[in-house]
Amino acid sequence: MKSIDILTLFPEMFSGVFGHSILKKAADKEIVQYNVVNFREFSDNKHQQVDDYPYGGGAGMVLKPQPIFDAVEDLSKKSKSSPRVILMCPQGERYTQAKAEELANEDHLIFVCGHYEGYDERIRQHVITDEISIGDYVLTGGELGAMVVVDSVVRLLPDVLGNEDSPVKDSFSSGLLEHPQYTRPADFRGMKVPEVLLSGNHRLIEEWREKESLKRTLDRRPDLLKKYPLSDQQKKWLQQRKNPQ
Amino acid sequence: MKSIDILTLFPEMFSGVFGHSILKKAADKEIVQYNVVNFREFSDNKHQQVDDYPYGGGAGMVLKPQPIFDAVEDLSKKSKSSPRVILMCPQGERYTQAKAEELANEDHLIFVCGHYEGYDERIRQHVITDEISIGDYVLTGGELGAMVVVDSVVRLLPDVLGNEDSPVKDSFSSGLLEHPQYTRPADFRGMKVPEVLLSGNHRLIEEWREKESLKRTLDRRPDLLKKYPLSDQQKKWLQQRKNPQ
Repeated sequence: MKSIDILTLFPEMFSGVFGHSILKKAADKEIVQYNVVNFREFSDNKHQQVDDYPYGGGAGMVLKPQPIFDAVEDLSKKSKSSPRVILMCPQGERYTQAKAEELANEDHLIFVCGHYEGYDERIRQHVITDEISIGDYVLTGGELGAMVVVDSVVRLLPDVLGNEDSPVKDSFSSGLLEHPQYTRPADFRGMKVPEVLLSGNHRLIEEWREKESLKRTLDRRPDLLKKYPLSDQQKKWLQQRKNPQ
Repeated sequence: MKSIDILTLFPEMFSGVFGHSILKKAADKEIVQYNVVNFREFSDNKHQQVDDYPYGGGAGMVLKPQPIFDAVEDLSKKSKSSPRVILMCPQGERYTQAKAEELANEDHLIFVCGHYEGYDERIRQHVITDEISIGDYVLTGGELGAMVVVDSVVRLLPDVLGNEDSPVKDSFSSGLLEHPQYTRPADFRGMKVPEVLLSGNHRLIEEWREKESLKRTLDRRPDLLKKYPLSDQQKKWLQQRKNPQ
């Protein structure tokens, strides 16, 4: 069973997300075990203080090294191998699906989530193995980022996603954006489903989907096309789309 | 007061995140009101079905147009102006801090969160005003993305962040990554705080921080430097860093 520990000052934030849907199912099936820990419990300060003013002055507070060092050491004891210790922070490497796949192979992940505060640099240098940012935007704390990483990792574990849960088709896993999807009714308030999808001609349907997938990727994420191994037919379609006659 | 509605099949997922920390404080101060709605309640199907098989075949299910159209129309009634209706999906524009600032100016946001399922294309074309992706990774549903966007938007609203909550310094808001931070003790298990931060010389401390911030940005996110208006002094430092003598 994979072990996922979360160090946070707001453990209650995780109950809704870890207690429902896929993440709950994975725990119920004993594929993964979540352990959300308030690292304030590890403070050796009599007031259980976990942060302090920054050396050199400035606004805000900085997380002290001691509670995090001690918490990570304590949690690491249960592992045979070294756990990956992940800091969620804006300076980290940008999270990708490839990183999710890498983390899905690990047995033990420990997430360190700050909240408002900065981190003492010695935590980054001596405790953390991976600094991850989920994107170029500012969040109140690392908690939401940790939930995002956990969700993306756990859904990759064997036997977590049943057939009923599998997405129609994952974007990114194919390298192109997904084509449009339609379901019943064929006419909703005058808005109609494309004829080809009702035709029953599977060859034409596949061709339409492939073209629409390329078109959407060209329109929205041309950067993805650069990495994609296009067939000659696909190159021709794209050329036609760029230079319609 | 700003109004934030969430359409989801998993409303319980939001309780932990909306019920704690900054998001709760903002609601307690009546700066924002959250309304998490299970759109299954809007299904006109006697079995309250919200999804159906895709036209043209394929695995997975697709969200039907009717429940989402009706739910968004119902929620829009309470708005004087048109709400922004945001679909969380991998094909959307990549979320940025600039988008967070844009959304923070809106009075009414409605988030549409699918879960496993695809979306009928007519929902995208006729109901949605913004498609947003929080990053290039696959999540089980749109719920975590919606929480991320809500957190990043609400913390920007006036009077939400008190002084005690303000981050040491936001990365991205300055355009560079944050410099290292240290707090007490000056010596932790033999790991020492840089001398300059203990010097009390504010000019030297500022210079050290500026250099470290540039250095970290160069090492980790050189793409950010291209957009940053470097001073002549900063260009010189970067040159020295790239070509140490």
